[in-house]
Amino acid sequence: MALINEIKFDSAGLVPAVAVDEKGSVLMLAYMNREAFEKTIATGKTTFYSRSRKKLWTKGEESGNVLEVLDIYLDCDGDAIVVKVKSGVPACHKGYASCFFRKYSSGGKWKIFKEKVFDPEKAYKKRGE
Amino acid sequence: MALINEIKFDSAGLVPAVAVDEKGSVLMLAYMNREAFEKTIATGKTTFYSRSRKKLWTKGEESGNVLEVLDIYLDCDGDAIVVKVKSGVPACHKGYASCFFRKYSSGGKWKIFKEKVFDPEKAYKKRGE
Repeated sequence: MALINEIKFDSAGLVPAVAVDEKGSVLMLAYMNREAFEKTIATGKTTFYSRSRKKLWTKGEESGNVLEVLDIYLDCDGDAIVVKVKSGVPACHKGYASCFFRKYSSGGKWKIFKEKVFDPEKAYKKRGE
Repeated sequence: MALINEIKFDSAGLVPAVAVDEKGSVLMLAYMNREAFEKTIATGKTTFYSRSRKKLWTKGEESGNVLEVLDIYLDCDGDAIVVKVKSGVPACHKGYASCFFRKYSSGGKWKIFKEKVFDPEKAYKKRGE
């Protein structure tokens, strides 16, 4: 597979992958290994490698919040990926549309500037993703 | 500084930072260490740590394509940053507005789908950033 071979996975076999929606909102950043990338291509569902759980992780497999792939972009150095996904699916296991729901504030804290869009207690039976 | 202490830098002291513009275009992904983050806050200019050159790197210090910071976001896990920057400044050392100028194509290659917006030969006297 020539396409995957242009991706420069790091020494741990990973590449950072940023999920953005059609409106240009950055939803989350996680990591893919070769297998996660291949599964993403094969299924059209954004799939990462969970560094904490040490296994493939198709986003939404528990919560139902699957990130359907529209396009995949590779950067100039081949060591970062952007996945454009369909809008309208909340990505954050804490109940927000985007994992980036905290903004730097010179007042001395990271300020939450978004509202929750779902109840994570209900969406995740066992644990957060 | 409580704010920086909520960032989970990895074992190499780095955190991935994604630069996006006001229109939601993802411009680039690079890494910050504590010093790069502090310099970004202090100067308002997006500053990374170059892993290859092993030193701080204020984007645009050679090319003039400085990425002026509008907002900084931290993700739910504290291990990824998004920097929103002013639109209109090309980010890629290869002459494109965004480093993500290649798109996955089932035809068997990463397809360049953007036009160059400047001549990198002229912008960089010695080397790419």
